Amino acid sequence: MNKEKFLREGERIDDLQRNGLFIISDPAGFCFGMDAVLLSGFVGEHNKRSGEKILDLCTGNGIIPILLSAKTRAAEITGIELQHKAADMALRSVELNSLKDRIRIIEDDINRAAEYITAASFDVVTVNPPYFKSGHGIINPDDAKTIARHEVACSLDDVLRESGRALKNGGSFYMVHKPQRLVDIFVSMRKADIEPKTLKEVYPHMGMAPAMVLIEGRKGANAELKIESPLIIYKEDNTYTEEMYTIYGY
Amino acid sequence: MNKEKFLREGERIDDLQRNGLFIISDPAGFCFGMDAVLLSGFVGEHNKRSGEKILDLCTGNGIIPILLSAKTRAAEITGIELQHKAADMALRSVELNSLKDRIRIIEDDINRAAEYITAASFDVVTVNPPYFKSGHGIINPDDAKTIARHEVACSLDDVLRESGRALKNGGSFYMVHKPQRLVDIFVSMRKADIEPKTLKEVYPHMGMAPAMVLIEGRKGANAELKIESPLIIYKEDNTYTEEMYTIYGY
Repeated sequence: MNKEKFLREGERIDDLQRNGLFIISDPAGFCFGMDAVLLSGFVGEHNKRSGEKILDLCTGNGIIPILLSAKTRAAEITGIELQHKAADMALRSVELNSLKDRIRIIEDDINRAAEYITAASFDVVTVNPPYFKSGHGIINPDDAKTIARHEVACSLDDVLRESGRALKNGGSFYMVHKPQRLVDIFVSMRKADIEPKTLKEVYPHMGMAPAMVLIEGRKGANAELKIESPLIIYKEDNTYTEEMYTIYGY
Repeated sequence: MNKEKFLREGERIDDLQRNGLFIISDPAGFCFGMDAVLLSGFVGEHNKRSGEKILDLCTGNGIIPILLSAKTRAAEITGIELQHKAADMALRSVELNSLKDRIRIIEDDINRAAEYITAASFDVVTVNPPYFKSGHGIINPDDAKTIARHEVACSLDDVLRESGRALKNGGSFYMVHKPQRLVDIFVSMRKADIEPKTLKEVYPHMGMAPAMVLIEGRKGANAELKIESPLIIYKEDNTYTEEMYTIYGY
């Protein structure tokens, strides 16, 4: 297959080294990072059920739905992305991987999700949201990277409110985020009736502070958090740890 | 000095192996555990200021005030304990250690603290509260151990509300608790305007789940949590790690 025909100017195709999957990315705008790999691995590790419906918010170039197509047995994965350029890349990546029967990309604002997402219709919601609060010296609020990284177009509360609305009771919520936002995250999740059930911290190296947190919540569940043994990314010699290879398949 | 004269039936004196300090405990009721040692070490590590006023809620047999007398340069430490037997032991331990000029023990209910504690009068509040929710199959709600371990006499919200009232703006709050309550803790702290600023998890062994969490909050502070590198208690050969020896002095 001639993959190049799926590309627009400035874009490239990355080999995901998993199930023969590829992703279209734009080094100047939408790329995927370790965050997406870790989140999809975390979902795959905790969610072994088949035939489920998964909703991925803030889907960007579609990296999470595409990785989840390999790492879960979900029947249907829906990604929502606000920005046209990213949503268009996601659509083309779905075509490139022949995943149109399992993955659907919606280009719209999650704050209007009530108009196009049926309440309590999803088993799982995943999200790799903007990490930083808006208003802290943001120079270009319309810039693609700013929208992806700062809460200018959607806040943590927006993400949680819409996740809570979309999830069935008992449904699972998975998010990757920054440790410094953990209090905001727990408060926002509880407000949305998505109780945090599992916290896994990701440490670049043993003995350092964590760089990321992976969180699993459950709609309508009782309060009781489990902090899992942390994930260490690199060994002392800067090669990946066994856990990175085995569980996260990267 | 004849220490035995400070003891009542069934009690014993433990050597704290720090600054020649001792503590009176009752194996059938009020003992101190690793929790108190870790909390006082955590406070000592983060709080280097001198001349401060510290309030210790749910002080039990007074272990935290006594350890803090060695681990901080506080001018005045006040411990509040509801149960008569424990408060009486705390008073005698203060006498035994000749600490009556720095440590004051109040036998009263923290829910009535507004009557005997001036608002915004403390620089630091510490607490090793009851860990478990009440109502889960509690057989003896009046039992001393039940009151110390379950939220029958004071809830997490009670502890935080009174801490928030007692603390000066910008004052520090330190608590040891169980990981499974972390969401309740963060929600309750924010409600009391004590923003969680530092989280340190305590792992018995590397690779296991944490057994305890140490939390530092600050009254009226902005939201931004720092997760510190975790504390590992035991090495593979079951001896204490260096950090346990050096930072926690035990």
